[in-house]
Amino acid sequence: LLVDGLWVDGEGPEVPVYDKYRLQPFATITLADAAQVRAAVDAAHAAFRRGGPVAYERGTVLERAAVLMDQRLDDFVRTMQLEAGFTAADAAGEVRRCIQTLKLSAEEARRLAGDVIPLEGAPNQAGRLAFTLRVPLGVVVAITPFNSPLNTVTHKVAPAFAAGNAVILKPSTHTPLTACKLAQVLLDAGMPSGFLSVLHGSAEVVQWLQNDERIRFFAFTGSTEVGRKIQQAAGLRRTQMELGSIACTILCEDAQLDAALPKIVNAGYRKAGQVCTSVQLLLVHVSRLAEVESRLSALVKALPFGDPHDPATVVGPVISEEAAIRIEGWIEEAVTSGATCLAGGAREGAVVPPTLLTNISNAMKVGCSEIFGPVVCIAPFSTLDQAIERVNATPFGLACGIFTNRLGDAFAAAQRLEVGGVHINETSSSRVDLMPYGGSKDSGFGREGPHYAIHEMTEERIVTFTTC
Amino acid sequence: LLVDGLWVDGEGPEVPVYDKYRLQPFATITLADAAQVRAAVDAAHAAFRRGGPVAYERGTVLERAAVLMDQRLDDFVRTMQLEAGFTAADAAGEVRRCIQTLKLSAEEARRLAGDVIPLEGAPNQAGRLAFTLRVPLGVVVAITPFNSPLNTVTHKVAPAFAAGNAVILKPSTHTPLTACKLAQVLLDAGMPSGFLSVLHGSAEVVQWLQNDERIRFFAFTGSTEVGRKIQQAAGLRRTQMELGSIACTILCEDAQLDAALPKIVNAGYRKAGQVCTSVQLLLVHVSRLAEVESRLSALVKALPFGDPHDPATVVGPVISEEAAIRIEGWIEEAVTSGATCLAGGAREGAVVPPTLLTNISNAMKVGCSEIFGPVVCIAPFSTLDQAIERVNATPFGLACGIFTNRLGDAFAAAQRLEVGGVHINETSSSRVDLMPYGGSKDSGFGREGPHYAIHEMTEERIVTFTTC
Amino acid sequence: LLVDGLWVDGEGPEVPVYDKYRLQPFATITLADAAQVRAAVDAAHAAFRRGGPVAYERGTVLERAAVLMDQRLDDFVRTMQLEAGFTAADAAGEVRRCIQTLKLSAEEARRLAGDVIPLEGAPNQAGRLAFTLRVPLGVVVAITPFNSPLNTVTHKVAPAFAAGNAVILKPSTHTPLTACKLAQVLLDAGMPSGFLSVLHGSAEVVQWLQNDERIRFFAFTGSTEVGRKIQQAAGLRRTQMELGSIACTILCEDAQLDAALPKIVNAGYRKAGQVCTSVQLLLVHVSRLAEVESRLSALVKALPFGDPHDPATVVGPVISEEAAIRIEGWIEEAVTSGATCLAGGAREGAVVPPTLLTNISNAMKVGCSEIFGPVVCIAPFSTLDQAIERVNATPFGLACGIFTNRLGDAFAAAQRLEVGGVHINETSSSRVDLMPYGGSKDSGFGREGPHYAIHEMTEERIVTFTTC
Amino acid sequence: LLVDGLWVDGEGPEVPVYDKYRLQPFATITLADAAQVRAAVDAAHAAFRRGGPVAYERGTVLERAAVLMDQRLDDFVRTMQLEAGFTAADAAGEVRRCIQTLKLSAEEARRLAGDVIPLEGAPNQAGRLAFTLRVPLGVVVAITPFNSPLNTVTHKVAPAFAAGNAVILKPSTHTPLTACKLAQVLLDAGMPSGFLSVLHGSAEVVQWLQNDERIRFFAFTGSTEVGRKIQQAAGLRRTQMELGSIACTILCEDAQLDAALPKIVNAGYRKAGQVCTSVQLLLVHVSRLAEVESRLSALVKALPFGDPHDPATVVGPVISEEAAIRIEGWIEEAVTSGATCLAGGAREGAVVPPTLLTNISNAMKVGCSEIFGPVVCIAPFSTLDQAIERVNATPFGLACGIFTNRLGDAFAAAQRLEVGGVHINETSSSRVDLMPYGGSKDSGFGREGPHYAIHEMTEERIVTFTTC
Repeated sequence: LLVDGLWVDGEGPEVPVYDKYRLQPFATITLADAAQVRAAVDAAHAAFRRGGPVAYERGTVLERAAVLMDQRLDDFVRTMQLEAGFTAADAAGEVRRCIQTLKLSAEEARRLAGDVIPLEGAPNQAGRLAFTLRVPLGVVVAITPFNSPLNTVTHKVAPAFAAGNAVILKPSTHTPLTACKLAQVLLDAGMPSGFLSVLHGSAEVVQWLQNDERIRFFAFTGSTEVGRKIQQAAGLRRTQMELGSIACTILCEDAQLDAALPKIVNAGYRKAGQVCTSVQLLLVHVSRLAEVESRLSALVKALPFGDPHDPATVVGPVISEEAAIRIEGWIEEAVTSGATCLAGGAREGAVVPPTLLTNISNAMKVGCSEIFGPVVCIAPFSTLDQAIERVNATPFGLACGIFTNRLGDAFAAAQRLEVGGVHINETSSSRVDLMPYGGSKDSGFGREGPHYAIHEMTEERIVTFTTC
Repeated sequence: LLVDGLWVDGEGPEVPVYDKYRLQPFATITLADAAQVRAAVDAAHAAFRRGGPVAYERGTVLERAAVLMDQRLDDFVRTMQLEAGFTAADAAGEVRRCIQTLKLSAEEARRLAGDVIPLEGAPNQAGRLAFTLRVPLGVVVAITPFNSPLNTVTHKVAPAFAAGNAVILKPSTHTPLTACKLAQVLLDAGMPSGFLSVLHGSAEVVQWLQNDERIRFFAFTGSTEVGRKIQQAAGLRRTQMELGSIACTILCEDAQLDAALPKIVNAGYRKAGQVCTSVQLLLVHVSRLAEVESRLSALVKALPFGDPHDPATVVGPVISEEAAIRIEGWIEEAVTSGATCLAGGAREGAVVPPTLLTNISNAMKVGCSEIFGPVVCIAPFSTLDQAIERVNATPFGLACGIFTNRLGDAFAAAQRLEVGGVHINETSSSRVDLMPYGGSKDSGFGREGPHYAIHEMTEERIVTFTTC
Repeated sequence: LLVDGLWVDGEGPEVPVYDKYRLQPFATITLADAAQVRAAVDAAHAAFRRGGPVAYERGTVLERAAVLMDQRLDDFVRTMQLEAGFTAADAAGEVRRCIQTLKLSAEEARRLAGDVIPLEGAPNQAGRLAFTLRVPLGVVVAITPFNSPLNTVTHKVAPAFAAGNAVILKPSTHTPLTACKLAQVLLDAGMPSGFLSVLHGSAEVVQWLQNDERIRFFAFTGSTEVGRKIQQAAGLRRTQMELGSIACTILCEDAQLDAALPKIVNAGYRKAGQVCTSVQLLLVHVSRLAEVESRLSALVKALPFGDPHDPATVVGPVISEEAAIRIEGWIEEAVTSGATCLAGGAREGAVVPPTLLTNISNAMKVGCSEIFGPVVCIAPFSTLDQAIERVNATPFGLACGIFTNRLGDAFAAAQRLEVGGVHINETSSSRVDLMPYGGSKDSGFGREGPHYAIHEMTEERIVTFTTC
Repeated sequence: LLVDGLWVDGEGPEVPVYDKYRLQPFATITLADAAQVRAAVDAAHAAFRRGGPVAYERGTVLERAAVLMDQRLDDFVRTMQLEAGFTAADAAGEVRRCIQTLKLSAEEARRLAGDVIPLEGAPNQAGRLAFTLRVPLGVVVAITPFNSPLNTVTHKVAPAFAAGNAVILKPSTHTPLTACKLAQVLLDAGMPSGFLSVLHGSAEVVQWLQNDERIRFFAFTGSTEVGRKIQQAAGLRRTQMELGSIACTILCEDAQLDAALPKIVNAGYRKAGQVCTSVQLLLVHVSRLAEVESRLSALVKALPFGDPHDPATVVGPVISEEAAIRIEGWIEEAVTSGATCLAGGAREGAVVPPTLLTNISNAMKVGCSEIFGPVVCIAPFSTLDQAIERVNATPFGLACGIFTNRLGDAFAAAQRLEVGGVHINETSSSRVDLMPYGGSKDSGFGREGPHYAIHEMTEERIVTFTTC
């Protein structure tokens, strides 16, 4: 644990960290107990009260962290290959995007500003001036998931600090080491003592944090189910919720398959499909169905899978054997209920071979719940309206891709898909770290992206002046 | 009730509306039952699905409403004198500000826009373009209080509709008639059927609304206690919470009392002190204490109080005899515990004479809970730091005034007072409808003011384009 | 003339105002002499120094003007029918847009504000705060053309006053009466004495104005030739230049002609083609050339032309017989040099029948100079690149329309056409008063639209605070 | 010269570069001839037409340049000590600020974006969408002065390239070497061939550049006299003009002299007073006059001056012996006409000892023209109004400082001083590279600061979409 600038052992239980491919422990962490949680909040709260570095210096810390991250790329890649089961390509992608996120957060630290309010535009306000300040909230808690053990963590920690908050990070117990290494990078970059703590633990630790009223903000990425609980416990405190999804991508009649299919393969199977925006449901215009099934199954079958340490591997293991067994079960349920498996194969440990299903129904688990595995399901549609309705029928609303060169269809989709992001000629999984990223409906609310997160993690205070 | 464009009787209990001064019923309303609540949500949801008027037309409806409101000013004033117990001046102030709020909301309807996102500023994004759309959420519920029965209602309903949402309004049962008349103005102005419903009722109606998952947003102004419950029931749905406060104003050593004292009197006793930002605690530099006590008590004693229909009256009744009895009790507790009463007198019905206390302690109810009545408490301080600490020590953080001509003190206060608004040379109660208004800590979150509310009542959707 | 709040006779020559259709004088104006020009600047400068109404009140004046304009619509229509030769439809369009421009300017007056500058984001600036003020420039001169005798005048006068400037208007001597009536509306709406003057006159008056260094800004709409001279005389003073153009519109292979052709007819012949953005050059994909020629010539031949007082008339006279003779000459030159006339006919007085040419060359006057008359020229293209190059080859860059449903082509055109506005599925003449409107290259610089103009007619002053 | 990515000898005259302290040539440059100027424009225009790197890459070039600049700091310092006569401290300040300017420009390159335009807020626009693009202008010429041979050059070149323009730099012939070294840094950082040229020369070169219509923008810092000529020659092309000033700073009755006087000394004598915002006129409240004269003269007399290579030196030479002789003459004229010299001494070569005058009159050259040397003039005032009027009476309006802790006076000064920047409790010379910097009246127009400059060096193109 990192508490008040010092790395200490947790007083809670010891927990092994597994190699996600070999399914064997390769490291151990200790969880925090209630007193350590309190101590972390004490330290954060005290640090915030003392006052943190000024905006320019916060930016400098984050910029230095970006430089250090670049220097330590290899170590981060190796750590994620082990504890997250990522391929080197996926792990390196995390690091490269993390560097962007750090740099963007540094810029936002330096640019954070309120607005001038035109008071004289209201009746009877002659001579008054007003502007707003953007002030940090205080102690911010970040609760982060295993599937983006570096960049998603950074998307919470960096803007929170950029804004001047003190942060307590509770990373996934699946991937604690990457989070600790990120914390070390930030310390080495000059993050002042107390402005960052790391607590390992599960629901209990989260609950202790929730019970401490000095915490002003919870930033969470994870399942809708857990998010709902955290939100309820937050009471009048603000939150940012990046939750589940059944991400869809639409291939229209005129879609350019040469460009689209490789993007879909990448967006469906990268990180073994463990991305909130991974293409789970591929909606294909009925006129292109046969062609897509045939070409896509060939591409999927050709994907090397297995050991993420093998440089050839594209699809590694999912996060645990339990998860793999669950995914396997969902595939079997689908096939039993009438789905056709165009690509796939037998699970080996935590490795689920890249799977392509067609002929699915909405009632199957693969059709109505988030699978979070290397499984893409094809479903046909006849009109764009139908495709849009299918997407809007899920309880979620994170992101959707659509491939078309028709202006009218592209704009109709943009205006009518009830999601946080619509990507024309990209998949649902198109994300750039500077953009506003987040969901609608049960996919949560709030927007990631340093420019957006820093606004959510501050509050606006108006200051008016009467001088005559 | 107004449901789907029609005024209907509630199927719930009949409830009288009292003349707040004479303490006698002068009208009757009927509450909604569960089926009517469902019908209202059905209508709102269906109207939203059908699609509302385009931005320009929404603006036109709101502008026409502003014109109608001006024409019906007298009727609104009379209604508020009866059901809210307001003086004609306070009631007319509500109407004039409501007109501003309607006009500002009309402008916001026409100006609502997303942002262009500079995707090409990220690695490997050559040729991509992106912008965001601001889309309405769907059905918005507004739960509004008695103390601003017109303008606070408008601050929720008008921006919600400006954004394209369908609104369900549940006004205070103390002041239902003003809300209905506002709804009629909006209907007459062309608000399309289904986009506005009015439901009378209490906690039960609120609960039925909370249970309906089709509602996407709750806008609430009221007590922190009730707000906390509504927030919890909202789950993953977004909210705007304008809650309680102990509003403070600071008189520094160099304060210009000639300008300050009349503003304090107005801000302490207007609407019988029933404003979230009414000056409850007046922090006076010790060097000016005697002068302030003497001059302010003279001003307060001179305030005419009683019948709000009497044009001379400045301070009318509070909202009910129970409220008056509670306030009376708090005053008595303070005096018994050592406070000095510089102005005040015996309660008559719901009328509490304007009261000025000094020598109070933080442990007294008047020192630690929101009084929401015509009571101002003086407390001395020696250094600005002390005054700021006293303000920050309350669990609330709505607004604070400070009177000084010292640049350094003014900016220190602006930067260190943990509140939503700091007003230099004005009282805590300084508000202009265009400005961002809302609290920190237990005073809630979110910002009123049409420009701000319309952003909270919409969500941002990014649309990206890859064209090559 | 309007000088210092009073209407006075000009001491310069008397000049008749012609009925543009009957070609007979129907009114007389007197031009300003040098002393009157100086007096107008004196009055404007003094008024500005005294200080104008506060932002809210400036907004109120402009809003009242919008209401008055609506009431006087008929009078304005009649006046423009006579002095501008407009049809009632064209004239009423001017009034309706003028009302929008006034209302938008009122809103901008109330919303004008600077920005907070994040000084602490720079090294060694701890504790400093900064914001900018938007301050008016002082005396602004507006020099306006005949082809939009009401709305273009308003686009200069209203934002200038909205910003707090004092304005001197020199309208076209072709259309002085509409300008005077607009001035009267503004006076009646409460524009304070000195903040608006009207001076009739020609180049000499403009020169007297240029020579007065108290004038801080020149807003000009007119020819590139005159604009260049005014710019040079302005020296270090700022300007806004809305100059000439050869407006083009592109019909792609997949253009929907049913929607496109009526828009093109309107954009080519409205106001007898006397609009900077009137379609002069219609670039048609070669595969659609025959169809466009045939359908468009039928539509153009069917356009009623002649007496603007006849309600059936769509195309009235141009501004003068000289102008008509010039246009006639250009058409003849084109036909002589090989162009084909698909529609057209003999000039009668100032009326040029709506003319459609094809088979034109770039060397003809109609291909390389702005015709400013009811003449559309068709030219074929084979690839979008060719069409874009043809547009970019003109020295101008005001606006361009393009009809296509292809996303890729639409975005390519948007990114590569060197103009101030690209309109997908609209003509070059698509304009909405709230949008930024203005040109590139020899079409000038600066942007009209009240939100933009008010920024050009103010300057930004940064104010920094060091308080410790 | 740098033309099309290659360093070549100029075909014009050879010109020596002087050591500004020793007054002896230490290097030689060759000026461009007309053909080389044309070649540079050819290269720039062609490079722009070919298309430059995408925004992210432009940012990367500028960031790399910042890193290189840091590495080469010592070389830049030495170069400026020789050719600009700067002390090491002044020269290092240039480099440090240049690094900020490069980094800020990099950020702006990545953040440049247009706006979404709310078309549906206008009548009859249902279904239309619009946004603006910010597009580079093409070839931009930067003409830069000797007194900030690195950072002012960067303030023009970096934002111009950040926006995507091709830049031609014509640095002062006094300080050509620093400019060439900056160009080399940019080339080494990856600036593509043609996007940057460097031309040495004087008025003739400027004229050849002006005559080339392919140049779309002139960014100039220098005297008002030269600026006026460049502006006139620019015609319809846009410009940015940072011109002369008589910078004033006001010491109010309550000014904290302990904080103020060291800032004034720094702002008056840094770079031997050769800064546009150097305090030339120090307006002192009459009640503090004696104290200020006495304390300030002591501080000024104590300033070490002379050889800039001596680390103790604070005030080095001015740019040339001619300049020193001119300054000496102005001082003599002042003293002859009645001024009192509180500090000063005999000129030695180009070194003018730091001089403090009092008892000056507005008619003296030091009171009405920009001295651009190490001379501060004290003048008393009785009321703030008088001080403000004195500042506003100069034809210039660049910046003004004011020392006071009175809120009312500070805001009055902010609102009434007709300058581009008002600095409360700082001198006129307070500048941070991220802020908007520029003048009013004869001090020019346009704003430096990368965020502002990049907007001036681009144009906005609206793109509208009709899709139904």
